[in-house]
Amino acid sequence: MASSSSLTLSQAILSRTSIPRHGSSQQLHPASIPSFSGLKSVSSAAAASLSRRRSAAVVRHPVIASAAVETLETTTDTELVDKSVNTIRFLAIDAVEKANSGHPGLPMGCAPMGHILYDEVMRYNPKNPYWFNRDRFVLSAGHGCMLQYALLHLAGYDSVKEDDLKSFRQWESKTPGHPENFETPGVEVTTGPLGQGIANAVGLALAEKHLAARYNKPDSEIVDHYTYVILGDGCQMEGISNEAASLAGHWGLGKLIAFYDDNHISIDGDTEIAFTESVDTRFEGLGWHIIWVKNGNTGYDEIRAAIKEAKSVTDKPTLIKVTTTIGFGSPNKANSYSVHGSALGAKEVEATRQNLGWSFEPFHVPEDVKSHWSRHTPEGAAFEAEWNAKFAEYEKKYPEESAELKSIITGAFPAGWEKALPTYTPESPADATRNLSQTNLNALAKVLPGLIGGSADLASSNMTLLKMFGDFQKNTPEERNVRFGVREHGMGAICNGIAHHSPGFVPYCATFFVFTDYMRAAIRISALSEAGVIYVMTHDSIGLGEDGPTHQPIEHLASFRAMPNILMFRPADGNETAGAYKVAVLNRKRPSILALSRQKLPQLPGTSIEGVEKGGYTISDNSSGNKPDVILIGTGSELEIAAKAADELRKEGKAVRVVSFVSWELFDEQSADYKESVLPSAVTARVSIEAGSTFGWGKIVGSTGKSIGIDRFGASAPAGKIYKEFGITAEAVVAAAKELI
Amino acid sequence: MASSSSLTLSQAILSRTSIPRHGSSQQLHPASIPSFSGLKSVSSAAAASLSRRRSAAVVRHPVIASAAVETLETTTDTELVDKSVNTIRFLAIDAVEKANSGHPGLPMGCAPMGHILYDEVMRYNPKNPYWFNRDRFVLSAGHGCMLQYALLHLAGYDSVKEDDLKSFRQWESKTPGHPENFETPGVEVTTGPLGQGIANAVGLALAEKHLAARYNKPDSEIVDHYTYVILGDGCQMEGISNEAASLAGHWGLGKLIAFYDDNHISIDGDTEIAFTESVDTRFEGLGWHIIWVKNGNTGYDEIRAAIKEAKSVTDKPTLIKVTTTIGFGSPNKANSYSVHGSALGAKEVEATRQNLGWSFEPFHVPEDVKSHWSRHTPEGAAFEAEWNAKFAEYEKKYPEESAELKSIITGAFPAGWEKALPTYTPESPADATRNLSQTNLNALAKVLPGLIGGSADLASSNMTLLKMFGDFQKNTPEERNVRFGVREHGMGAICNGIAHHSPGFVPYCATFFVFTDYMRAAIRISALSEAGVIYVMTHDSIGLGEDGPTHQPIEHLASFRAMPNILMFRPADGNETAGAYKVAVLNRKRPSILALSRQKLPQLPGTSIEGVEKGGYTISDNSSGNKPDVILIGTGSELEIAAKAADELRKEGKAVRVVSFVSWELFDEQSADYKESVLPSAVTARVSIEAGSTFGWGKIVGSTGKSIGIDRFGASAPAGKIYKEFGITAEAVVAAAKELI
Repeated sequence: MASSSSLTLSQAILSRTSIPRHGSSQQLHPASIPSFSGLKSVSSAAAASLSRRRSAAVVRHPVIASAAVETLETTTDTELVDKSVNTIRFLAIDAVEKANSGHPGLPMGCAPMGHILYDEVMRYNPKNPYWFNRDRFVLSAGHGCMLQYALLHLAGYDSVKEDDLKSFRQWESKTPGHPENFETPGVEVTTGPLGQGIANAVGLALAEKHLAARYNKPDSEIVDHYTYVILGDGCQMEGISNEAASLAGHWGLGKLIAFYDDNHISIDGDTEIAFTESVDTRFEGLGWHIIWVKNGNTGYDEIRAAIKEAKSVTDKPTLIKVTTTIGFGSPNKANSYSVHGSALGAKEVEATRQNLGWSFEPFHVPEDVKSHWSRHTPEGAAFEAEWNAKFAEYEKKYPEESAELKSIITGAFPAGWEKALPTYTPESPADATRNLSQTNLNALAKVLPGLIGGSADLASSNMTLLKMFGDFQKNTPEERNVRFGVREHGMGAICNGIAHHSPGFVPYCATFFVFTDYMRAAIRISALSEAGVIYVMTHDSIGLGEDGPTHQPIEHLASFRAMPNILMFRPADGNETAGAYKVAVLNRKRPSILALSRQKLPQLPGTSIEGVEKGGYTISDNSSGNKPDVILIGTGSELEIAAKAADELRKEGKAVRVVSFVSWELFDEQSADYKESVLPSAVTARVSIEAGSTFGWGKIVGSTGKSIGIDRFGASAPAGKIYKEFGITAEAVVAAAKELI
Repeated sequence: MASSSSLTLSQAILSRTSIPRHGSSQQLHPASIPSFSGLKSVSSAAAASLSRRRSAAVVRHPVIASAAVETLETTTDTELVDKSVNTIRFLAIDAVEKANSGHPGLPMGCAPMGHILYDEVMRYNPKNPYWFNRDRFVLSAGHGCMLQYALLHLAGYDSVKEDDLKSFRQWESKTPGHPENFETPGVEVTTGPLGQGIANAVGLALAEKHLAARYNKPDSEIVDHYTYVILGDGCQMEGISNEAASLAGHWGLGKLIAFYDDNHISIDGDTEIAFTESVDTRFEGLGWHIIWVKNGNTGYDEIRAAIKEAKSVTDKPTLIKVTTTIGFGSPNKANSYSVHGSALGAKEVEATRQNLGWSFEPFHVPEDVKSHWSRHTPEGAAFEAEWNAKFAEYEKKYPEESAELKSIITGAFPAGWEKALPTYTPESPADATRNLSQTNLNALAKVLPGLIGGSADLASSNMTLLKMFGDFQKNTPEERNVRFGVREHGMGAICNGIAHHSPGFVPYCATFFVFTDYMRAAIRISALSEAGVIYVMTHDSIGLGEDGPTHQPIEHLASFRAMPNILMFRPADGNETAGAYKVAVLNRKRPSILALSRQKLPQLPGTSIEGVEKGGYTISDNSSGNKPDVILIGTGSELEIAAKAADELRKEGKAVRVVSFVSWELFDEQSADYKESVLPSAVTARVSIEAGSTFGWGKIVGSTGKSIGIDRFGASAPAGKIYKEFGITAEAVVAAAKELI
C-alpha cells in the first residue's frame, strides 16, 4: 500500500478520492473526503454521523429536477479528466476499428460518467475483482462493452491488458462482443440482451441490502457497497426493466444508482419513432428518486453532484438521467444511429481525432492518464486489507454470524448440509412433488445460509414459502421470502444478480412451468453466465387440469433439454425431488429447473437420491443378464404409469425394466459402461412415456422404439380425463410394449 | 329486426342504448342517444358534428381525476341493472361451484363494468360474432373468464348456452378455464397468461386505427369501432403490459379504453407485498389519459361517465382505474386472495346469496333480466345490416378500396398473389437470407393489402422495411411499417391482436432469432390461438459472429420444432425463402418462424418453392434406385456445407443424396411414400448438419446416423473462425459420412 509520501502529483490533485489510511487518515484529512466519493469512515462514530446526515437528506424530489451543481470541496483538474475521458473514448474507437465490429457510440457518450464512477466514486480492488465488499457495476447496455473494458484496463485489472483490447471480439479473447462475467474478471454479470443488466443490478442491490441487514452490527458495517448501472433507451423499452425497477422501488433499494444514458438514438434512428413516453414520470410512479443531468458530455460536476444527491437518498433507488450525445466527438456521425453499432471508419476516426485534439497512436494511454489511474492498484489493495481487518474483528465478536457470512462469501457450504434432505419409503404418503419441493426448501433453509428466493405471485401454488422466515421487504430486508409479484422475467434476472453477488447464495424462484416462456431470456443467461439459480417450476403438465392449454406445458421439457449448461429435472416422487435439490445446490455454476407436479404422486419403490445423481437409472427390473424384453422409460408423474405398465407386463411373464430418466443431461455425462447398463444397446424394444412433447425422445428409444407423449396443445378439463383422452395411460404403454416384444 | 312497437318495457326504459333504425331513428330520437352509448349517426353530417364535438373535448386531464358523475340523459332502472349485475355474479359463482374449479373473485368484482360494457356500450351482433365492425372486448385478466361467458350468454351468443355454463372447464366444452378464441366464438383472443390481453388489445386498436385511416372517406366511416379491455393487477405487473401500453400511448390509440380492475388483491395476498407503484403516474408517463372510478362495485354512473369521458379523448388511450372489491358480495371471502382462484364452497355461496338477496336456483337468469338483454339479438342484427348497407354504398363509390378492405375482412387474397414471389437460379448473386426476406416482403406488400409489420428496433438489421410505405405513426396510421421499439414481447402479442382483428391481415414482426426468448409466451399464443403471424428472425446462428453467445441462437430451432401448431422454417437461399413466405402467408391459422442468416449464402442448385412446401426434399442425388450410399441432411446456411461435402464424396465415387430439411413440421405431414422417397428406411447412413443444437435430430438420422451441430454456447469471434473451431465444416461432414459408409 502506498504511503502518503508516494502520492503522485495527479493523486495529490485528486486526493479527495484517496482512501483513508489504516484509520488514521480520517483524522488527518477529514475534509478531503466528500461523501460522494463512496469512501466512508472506518470509525463507527463517523459512520453513524454519516448515516444521520443521510437520513436528514431524504427529501421528496420533484420529477426531472436538474442536478444541482454544487461547489466541490476540492479543485478538480478538469484538463486531466478530459484527457482521461478522451482516452476511454479512443480506446473504444480504436478497438472497434481494429475489430471492424462493435459499438463505439455508447462508450463515446458515456465516457464521462464511466470515468467518474471508476476513477472517483467506486471502491474496488483491481487485483482481486472478487473482493466481497466491492461496489458493483453493471453495464446494462452491454453492447457498449468497450466502455467497461477501457475502464477495467485503466483501473489496472489484469483481465484487460492492452493486448486484450487489441483482440476485441476475437476468438478466445477476454474482450468478447458483449460483457461476459465468465470470460472477464471485473465484469459482474453477462449483459447484451437488453434490460437484463438493470434487473441483475436490482438483484445485486437486493443481495447487499439483505446481507447488510442480516450481518451488520452497530459497531461494524461489514456489508456496505453500492450497485451502479448504466442503461440505455433500449433497456428502458424492454418490459423486464420496468418489472425490475418496480420491485427496486417497492423494496426501497437506496444503494442502487442507475444512470440512464438518454441519448435519443436507438438502432432504428431517433427514439421519437417508437419511444416518446416520459421515463422520468414512469420512474416517479415506480417510486424512484430521479435526477436529470442535462450535460452528460462535459458536465462532470453535474454528474458528481447527481451521485452525491443519489447517495443522500437512502430509501429509494435513484435514476440519474444523463443526457448525452451518442458518438460524442465524431463530427459527422455523432447523434446518429450510424455510430451505434459499427466502426467509425478510418476517415471518421481521423476526423474525430482532429475534433477532440487527440494526437496519439491507436490504443495509446497518455502517461499522465496512466499515472493518474495507477493509484487504484494500491488503493484497491488497501480497501480490501482494511475490510479484511474489519472482518477479522467481526469474526472474533460474532462467530456465528461470521461463519454464515463466510459461507455466503466463499460458497463453502456447512459440512453435511445434504443430510438435511428428506428421504422417503414406498410407505410414505403420496404427495405432489410441489409439496415435496417445499419440504426440501424448508430443510435446506436451515442449513444453507445463502438460500433465498420466492415466487412470482404464486407462493401458495408453487409451495415456496420458507416457514421459518418472513418476507424480504423494504423494512424487513433480513428475511428470505422474496415476493416478486407477477414479474417472471424480472424475477429470473434478479436471481441471476443474487447468484453473481456471492458464490454462496443459492437463489431460487418459482412460477408455473409454462411461464418459463416469460422468463426464458433470463434463464438462458443463468445457463450462459454460470449462475446456479434453482427454478422451481410447478404445474408441470396437463396434470394441472382445468386451467387449460394456456397453462399446460407441452414443449417446455424439450426446449430446456436442448439448452446448453442447464439441468432439467423432472422428479417422480419424494426421493427424486430431494435428489434434484441435492444436485441443484451443488451445481453453483449451472442452473437447474425442477418440473414439479400439481397432482399427488405415490412414493415409488426404487427411486433414490443416488439414482437422480446419475440422471437415468433403473428403478425396477425382473430381467437377468442385462437383457430385458422391453425397457419402459418414464419421467415425473409418468414414472408411476411406466411402473404400472411393467406390473401388467410382468404378470404376463415379460422381463421388464423400468427406467427413470429424471435428468437427461446428467445421464449424458455418465460413462459409456453405465449407460449401457441402463439402456443396453441390444435392447431396442423401448417405450418412453412423458406428458409432454415427444421431441427428442427419438434418440433415447431409438429408431424402433416408441414414444408416448403429447404433440398437440392441452385442454381444459379435470386432469384424469385429459390423461385418458390423450392416451397417457398404462394401457397405452402396455400396448406399445407388446408391439415391440 | 325489431320494429319500435315490439320494444319491451325494459328496452323502453333503456331506450338510450337502442340502435338507430335505418337512419330514420336519428331524426326520431336524437336526444335518446348519448355519445357514450357507442352509437353514432349514420348520416355524415351528424358524424362530422360528433367528430367536432370530440375534438373540442380533448383536454389534458390531471392524473387520478375521479370520474365526473354527470346527470344522465335518461333515467336508469338501477334496480334492473343491480339484478343483471347479480345475475352475472351468480352465473360465475354457480359455474365455478359446479366445476369445483375456477376464479369467482374477478367476475364478482367486475360484473358492473361488464354489464355496462355489454349491455349499454358495446356494438356487436351476437348471432355473428365475426361481424367486422364490432367493438372488440378483451379480458386480459383471463382467469376471470366466467365474467365473459356470463356476458356472452346474456347477450345471446350461441356459443355460450346454459349447458355450456354448466360444463365450465369440462372436456370439449365451449367454456374452457381461460378464454380461447378458437373454442368460443365471441372471444376475440386467447388470454390467461397475464399481460397478453392488454397487448392484444393494443394490436386490435392499431388495426382499427390503421384500417380507418386507409379506408374511411369523408362520406363514409366504414371502419369505426372501439377496443375495450379489462386488466388486473397481475397484468399490470407484467413487463409486456408496460411495453404495449408505452406503444399505445406513442401511437395515440384514442379508441382503446382499458379498465384496470384495481382490487388490491393478487394470488399471494394484498398487492402491498409486491406492487406499491403508482400505476396512474406510470400511465401518465406512458401518455395515457387516466380516470379513476372510486366505486366500481355499485357506482354505475361513475363507470358510465368514465366511458363517456374516455371516448371524448380521441388522441390518447384511456386507462379507467376502477376500484373494486374482489369477490364482491361474499360476506366472508370478499377482499381476500381466497376468493381469487377457487370455488366459494356451498356454505359461502349460500351466505353470498343471502347477502345479495339472491333467491334463485343456480344458473337461473331471472325473466326480466333475460327479457332486458334479449334486445341485443335484433339490435346486433340491425347493426350489421346497417353496416352492410353502408358497405354496399361504399363498394359502389370506392371499388378499389373496397376490394382491398374486403380482402382484409374475408381473408381471401387477390388471385395469383403468389406469382409476386421472386425466384432464383444458381447464377443469381449470393445473398443473406435476411436480404432475400426483404425482397419477398416488399414483393408481397404489393399484392397483399393486409401485410403490415415491422421490427423491434432492428429494421435495418432484420431487413423488414417495406419501401413503398412510410411508418405507422400517430399521425400517419395509414402506413404499414410498424416501429415497435425494443419491445419484443409486446410486439408479438400486438401482432396476435392484429391477426385476430381480421382474417386477411398478415402481420409480421422481427428481431434477432435469439430474442425469440423475450417473446416466447406471445409466440406460443400465436400457435395456440391460431394467429398466422410471420416471425422474421434474422441472425439465426453463430454465423452472426462477433456479437457472441448472448446473441447466438443454439437451442432455438429445437425449441420451436417441439412447439405444437407452428411452422419453423430455416431456408437456405432465395428460392427457399420465397417458399417459406408462400407457406407462411397461406397458413393464416398457424404462425411461421423464418430463421434467416446474417451472412451471404449462395443460390443452390435444386432448391425450389415446391420443395419447401414439402418441408424436406432432395436437392441433389447421384444415386439410383432410391439407394444412396449416404444421405446428407442440412438446413439453412449449412445446406451449402452439405452440398460441398457431397461434391467431395462424389469425387471419390460415392452415391450421395443431399436433402434440405427446411421445415420439419411440413415434412412430417407428407405421405409415408413421399417420406420414404426422401429418407428411405433402408439407408441408415445419414449425416445431419445444422449450426444449432443436435437435440431432436436423433429421430431423423436414426440410431446409427450422425448429427453435426453445436451443443454448447457460441463465442465472440468472426463467423468463419467460429464455424471452423466448432467443426461446422464440409470436412466434418465428409469424415462423418465416411465412418458410416
